Amino acid sequence: MTGTLVLLRHGESEWNAKNLFTGWVDVDLNAKGETEARRGGELLKEHGLLPDVVHTSVLRRAIRTSEIALHTADRHWIPVKRHWRLNERHYGALQGKDKKQTLETYGEEQFMLWRRSYDVPPPPIEDGDEYSQFADPRYALLPPELKPRSECLKDVLLRALPYWYDAIVPDLRAGKTVLVAAHGNSLRAIVKHLDQVSDSAIAALNIPTGIPLRYDLDDSLRPITAGGAYLDPELAKEAAAAVANQGR
Amino acid sequence: MTGTLVLLRHGESEWNAKNLFTGWVDVDLNAKGETEARRGGELLKEHGLLPDVVHTSVLRRAIRTSEIALHTADRHWIPVKRHWRLNERHYGALQGKDKKQTLETYGEEQFMLWRRSYDVPPPPIEDGDEYSQFADPRYALLPPELKPRSECLKDVLLRALPYWYDAIVPDLRAGKTVLVAAHGNSLRAIVKHLDQVSDSAIAALNIPTGIPLRYDLDDSLRPITAGGAYLDPELAKEAAAAVANQGR
Repeated sequence: MTGTLVLLRHGESEWNAKNLFTGWVDVDLNAKGETEARRGGELLKEHGLLPDVVHTSVLRRAIRTSEIALHTADRHWIPVKRHWRLNERHYGALQGKDKKQTLETYGEEQFMLWRRSYDVPPPPIEDGDEYSQFADPRYALLPPELKPRSECLKDVLLRALPYWYDAIVPDLRAGKTVLVAAHGNSLRAIVKHLDQVSDSAIAALNIPTGIPLRYDLDDSLRPITAGGAYLDPELAKEAAAAVANQGR
Repeated sequence: MTGTLVLLRHGESEWNAKNLFTGWVDVDLNAKGETEARRGGELLKEHGLLPDVVHTSVLRRAIRTSEIALHTADRHWIPVKRHWRLNERHYGALQGKDKKQTLETYGEEQFMLWRRSYDVPPPPIEDGDEYSQFADPRYALLPPELKPRSECLKDVLLRALPYWYDAIVPDLRAGKTVLVAAHGNSLRAIVKHLDQVSDSAIAALNIPTGIPLRYDLDDSLRPITAGGAYLDPELAKEAAAAVANQGR
């Protein structure tokens, strides 16, 4: 028997609200993001979809989302696993930049290529950039070739998949309900893999914040229903449309 | 090289403030307890005593204390391990009872025996008691003989020691700075073990809330300085005195 996967994208952060590219910069949730995380926890509880284990990135906004949601669902006591492979996409030199301003400076085509193309990464971040994470203690023991200077979605998928296979799949194989609390792009990478979304179609796929997305998987770890099911489908539809319009 | 141990007792909970026996009842921190947890995190940061891994009980007040302290110290991303063996002492039939009222009903001698004797547990909790944890999902897979109906400090020490040896010691042996965020009595049990405090002397030993207690250990996992060192020794002295007077 294969367990149940629940994906949860973190709620609004201080930089989402300011419309800045965030990537690996470790900003916190704002008050709206905390409310979204609580709503995520309430949805889990209402649906009796109670995680047995949680996997998060090593970024504060995903960690706090998982903490708030799990306290709300009375599942604060479950085992916790964290890994940088679940981090948001590294946004390279764009980290800390205003999305609207970037759109105006580089034009619609280049902007959308960086935001939504599958395999074009933004310009690489420099060592001295104030938003570089090269000195961060949580990445200090990684060999340099594992520390990204910029990532496209394909890069995210390639670095997230080993964690999917080696850490998340064993928990699913053990029959657990597995919560993955992460980011827009690390979750899109997992969804792309699960639903075998094409490189072009993934551009239009947006995951809304704070609404748990449930996947029941078959013995081959493929979704029984393509696309899974949001615990609040109406809200998910509205929210996904809003994400698509960011930067406008 | 042996790592560094940091003990942190959770801040004030909703039931500490009401002067009720809590034990395994899963009450939350109150606002004062959250402030204490933040102060604990600030002390860790000020002293550059940055945990590499955290061990907590499966009770909300210890978990939230660790979360708040680690976010404050920018160490929210470290590995987390939780275990019921770090839980507070099970207070048996006294759980949910008013401390002052219990003192008046049973008298000073019996009250102090239950609170501070090393080997006299309170009366056992009944299955139907509203504060029994027998139906709690986090303990559902434990064999019945592991689920306490009441514990004295000796019971806590005996059930905490396997976790100390098998989970915490390996992290210390690996040279890590190990944060243990737990409870008055599970931490007293660890301190009793480390400092080889006698069964009678442990009665007078109180651990204040929210003030990290640092132990540097030698190769035999014994404290280099008996009693360790609080990161804020003055405050610790005042706070320990206040704990000793609870229920008066």
